[in-house]
Amino acid sequence: MFDKEYDVIVVGGGHAGAEATAAAANMGSRTLLVTMNLQTIGQMSCNPAMGGIAKGQIVREIDALGGYSGIITDRSAIQFKMLNKSKGPAMWSPRAQNDRMRFAEEWRLALENTPNADFYQDMVSGILILGDRVVGVRTSLGIEIRSKAVVLTNGTFLNGLIHIGEKQFGGGRAGEKAATGITEQLVGLGFDSGRMKTGTPPRVDGRSLDYSKMIPQPGDEKPEKFSYLNTPVLKTQRDCHMTHTSALVHDLLREGFDRSPMFNGRIKSLGPRYCPSIEDKINRFTDKDSHQIFVEPEGWDTVEVYVNGFSTSLPEDVQYRALKSVRGFEHVKFFRPGYAIEYDYFPPTQLKHTLETKLVNNLYFAGQINGTTGYEEAASQGLMAGINAHLKINEKEPFVLKRDEAYIGVLIDDLITKGTEEPYRMFTSRAEYRTLLRQDNADLRLTPRGFEIGLAKEERMRRMEEKLDKSEKFVDFFKKTSFDPEEINPILESVDSATVRQSDKLFKVFSRPKVTMDHMLQLNEVSGYVSENDLDAEVMEQAEILVKYSGYIEKEKNNADKLHRLENVRIPDHFDYSQLKSLSFEAREKLESIRPVTISQASRISGVSPADISVLLVYLGR
Amino acid sequence: MFDKEYDVIVVGGGHAGAEATAAAANMGSRTLLVTMNLQTIGQMSCNPAMGGIAKGQIVREIDALGGYSGIITDRSAIQFKMLNKSKGPAMWSPRAQNDRMRFAEEWRLALENTPNADFYQDMVSGILILGDRVVGVRTSLGIEIRSKAVVLTNGTFLNGLIHIGEKQFGGGRAGEKAATGITEQLVGLGFDSGRMKTGTPPRVDGRSLDYSKMIPQPGDEKPEKFSYLNTPVLKTQRDCHMTHTSALVHDLLREGFDRSPMFNGRIKSLGPRYCPSIEDKINRFTDKDSHQIFVEPEGWDTVEVYVNGFSTSLPEDVQYRALKSVRGFEHVKFFRPGYAIEYDYFPPTQLKHTLETKLVNNLYFAGQINGTTGYEEAASQGLMAGINAHLKINEKEPFVLKRDEAYIGVLIDDLITKGTEEPYRMFTSRAEYRTLLRQDNADLRLTPRGFEIGLAKEERMRRMEEKLDKSEKFVDFFKKTSFDPEEINPILESVDSATVRQSDKLFKVFSRPKVTMDHMLQLNEVSGYVSENDLDAEVMEQAEILVKYSGYIEKEKNNADKLHRLENVRIPDHFDYSQLKSLSFEAREKLESIRPVTISQASRISGVSPADISVLLVYLGR
Repeated sequence: MFDKEYDVIVVGGGHAGAEATAAAANMGSRTLLVTMNLQTIGQMSCNPAMGGIAKGQIVREIDALGGYSGIITDRSAIQFKMLNKSKGPAMWSPRAQNDRMRFAEEWRLALENTPNADFYQDMVSGILILGDRVVGVRTSLGIEIRSKAVVLTNGTFLNGLIHIGEKQFGGGRAGEKAATGITEQLVGLGFDSGRMKTGTPPRVDGRSLDYSKMIPQPGDEKPEKFSYLNTPVLKTQRDCHMTHTSALVHDLLREGFDRSPMFNGRIKSLGPRYCPSIEDKINRFTDKDSHQIFVEPEGWDTVEVYVNGFSTSLPEDVQYRALKSVRGFEHVKFFRPGYAIEYDYFPPTQLKHTLETKLVNNLYFAGQINGTTGYEEAASQGLMAGINAHLKINEKEPFVLKRDEAYIGVLIDDLITKGTEEPYRMFTSRAEYRTLLRQDNADLRLTPRGFEIGLAKEERMRRMEEKLDKSEKFVDFFKKTSFDPEEINPILESVDSATVRQSDKLFKVFSRPKVTMDHMLQLNEVSGYVSENDLDAEVMEQAEILVKYSGYIEKEKNNADKLHRLENVRIPDHFDYSQLKSLSFEAREKLESIRPVTISQASRISGVSPADISVLLVYLGR
Repeated sequence: MFDKEYDVIVVGGGHAGAEATAAAANMGSRTLLVTMNLQTIGQMSCNPAMGGIAKGQIVREIDALGGYSGIITDRSAIQFKMLNKSKGPAMWSPRAQNDRMRFAEEWRLALENTPNADFYQDMVSGILILGDRVVGVRTSLGIEIRSKAVVLTNGTFLNGLIHIGEKQFGGGRAGEKAATGITEQLVGLGFDSGRMKTGTPPRVDGRSLDYSKMIPQPGDEKPEKFSYLNTPVLKTQRDCHMTHTSALVHDLLREGFDRSPMFNGRIKSLGPRYCPSIEDKINRFTDKDSHQIFVEPEGWDTVEVYVNGFSTSLPEDVQYRALKSVRGFEHVKFFRPGYAIEYDYFPPTQLKHTLETKLVNNLYFAGQINGTTGYEEAASQGLMAGINAHLKINEKEPFVLKRDEAYIGVLIDDLITKGTEEPYRMFTSRAEYRTLLRQDNADLRLTPRGFEIGLAKEERMRRMEEKLDKSEKFVDFFKKTSFDPEEINPILESVDSATVRQSDKLFKVFSRPKVTMDHMLQLNEVSGYVSENDLDAEVMEQAEILVKYSGYIEKEKNNADKLHRLENVRIPDHFDYSQLKSLSFEAREKLESIRPVTISQASRISGVSPADISVLLVYLGR
């Protein structure tokens, strides 16, 4: 059925597979996406949302490089929020709620409109090997499809096993078949494999909820968006709602603990620490008798609702009784219960920085198969695997992002150097250069790199250059332009900032903490410059950050340098980590268990963040 | 998880299940739809089209009664055609191409917006029985959900087995799991079950086709629609295209016949005679070296294409080689191969006219589980099962449509009195009263009946009454109003109809074959009446049919009466059916095999149509 050799075959059509396909095809590789079901391409398996803290930055990075996730998110969003806006710009994190059906449809159509991307529905049951190189895949129909490179993005489908209470079913997602064959073959080839676990909450009927008992969670008043291209901005948005569990709810859940696959030993693999099940939260944080629940609509029109924060694999009757006791859920109707799923992954230390496997040439892994969790983490790996598969078969230099260039660089470096024993998700704290890796400058950081390799197109590059040029000139304007004290003092007074006696450069007052771009715009010279140079909100934001946070950015660079030098400090034997309250819970647990000998070793432990290392350094007196 | 008893549980969310849910819920029953995957509700498993000959009439009947299929079809249509417009109005058959994704989405949203309809995702593995009555279902999670009635609409999922060449997989549809447990339980209860087979063609990439080598098949210039309600009319449409197989294509297909599950005995069950696989067509019609292929787009935007007329379960490499030799398909890329699927059905003679099973009270079957094929046949059974389940548990009279009332009546009467050994599809020839059962008058025939039982709502009834009233008055107008020969003669001359000397009623000239409503509208009196009374196209069409075909309708009623009287004529032993060339191929085959003793017995054989009976009666000299 396939009489030609493809350049790249991508196995799986989730976030990783879809980005890998788009990247390889857009760079010119004849690419085939093979998926068990063409109607579930771009399916959001878990929550109907993209972005969030550190994850939103990744989506913007994907977009800056020329990937699709930002565009698809913008086209299917039903709500947008810039999280952490009250903190410094390194923490600002875009997040969108999405229409689940529309998201998948937009992915499908975007891929269909990508030249060089072909599609085929079948289950891949193995790869074809010639010598030390992959040369294609074999499907469940026995079809052999040849290619120069293969990207595996199997998600939770490899020997997927679904758990609800004491019941188990084979399956890759609820209602979908598991995939078999690949793990067995790879293990036979010498790969290490392991099992991981993830879970999802119940989906319920929004018509059965009493929203008047919950707290509305509206989107931003002035919603932004993900893509640096000209995607739509939301004109209307749908609210989410917040409610809470209670001591009663926890008691009701505890009644099912003896039947929980998490606690009775049936599930041995580790789940995502920062996306824990509700039973896990109760068990780990015994002092808390309430946890937040976010009630998220699944789309513009559907009544289906996602119960974020209530992921569970307890027996369905326990789920039901407990959820009914949550405020606003008294009359809840289930569309389906929550469940846990165990699946095969391959410890990512078996990969190179390009996501190519060390054992088999031209074979790439991306997404949950590498032990990560999260759509954004998966998508970015897919993108990088797709790019590198294309570059490799064209005998070009690999494309690797450094830790100070992108969250994507941090993610992949963490994975391949540290490995991970539990589903890995991104945090700002994992990035030692996070002040540099902001959502506002992903285009400035990465679009030139994406353009260089032929993925980001002219239009993207032109927009980035215009933004860079205009914002730098605007900063220069502030540096060069003097203010008139009589004009500036009323503004300074209005924000309780000390007034000035004599004229100085605008840059100087603008640098003051309480003075914002809005204040600057009250000056005729500034507003005149803005309208004369046709500056948009993005340019003004960029200039504002460059003016106001340049000090921080410099400082952070210095800190990072210091950290590098101090990495080899020794940690005493029997060091008592429990005294260091400002260590993260995860770091303390890991440090107590692994007991590293040096700070350097401690810093390489998955889950021990640069912030934890700083805490240790402070305590150890440097 | 379900602390209340439902009135009706519907198992399965295809055309039958969706209509059953809508009907029962709209009549006031608390209804639960249980499906293996909530994201595939209203999925078109096979071709992306609704209606067609006899089937379009069924959709209009469903709509007239207050079902949803017509509305959903209109909302998701990408092309509309009134088939057979050159024939008499009994043959006019509406047909729409649909956007597959949109169709399913519209179904899902319509059901979500139906009060009393709840949803639950799980596989039903058995029914709960108390004495001689069904009292609920049991799911694969072991959950028991109670109800007063259950409607089973399992489609091709019961022990579904997919065949492609020599390969077999368990599955309910490509990429979806089969359902197990129900057949075994029902057989244990004393039900007869059998196996049937159906198939589907490959889906291909529209970008790989050369449409310039095919014949465009546009929609109607003035597209109509299905629903009698105020649904949208298409403003733009997408073309289909036609191409043909050739002797070469047939030769290439024949090369795979020894590996075909149809011919090597692997598939023993019968497939749909009038929707045969391409290999079946080649095998049965050896004198034909070309068959039509309709290339149907799967939606507004997608590049996926449905290859109508090329259904096949030959090995995928044979499918590929042969399809590549079809004009326009030289560079075809497959999205997935065609396949055949075998599944369990229950001979429908085990049902009452209400679609309730004779063995288990309050248990209803609808759709392919009854041995039918086709979305429309399934949907109409679902509607009737949903209605009757509601009526039964409310101790109301059953709702049965007679053969002279509706195609739906013909369908169900055929099923339960004759049974069927091969997938049953509707034809106009199956309806002895087809002149009465037109697509234009389904509302006049059935909306009052739907209204009576509380399914069709006020608005629908009001529209129907207005149409009826206006069209009858318009006919009266033609009967009462005299023409002026000087005014009418130019019109008669323009259509080569004899001129008149003296004035007479308009009805008389309008009854002439070549004179149409358009001609009538050239008369000031008529156009004046139309604008004065604000008559729309539907009313004018209805009046035209009532004027022009009243003779036919009367005649058909008489024929039907005669047929009833002549039914007991004896057929001689060893009668040579092969002499009767005007018998249908199917009728001849069946008659030769069963060799009925009387015309009455012959008429009850599935596949022997009233037209065939007429042929026999003529030959046997009455």
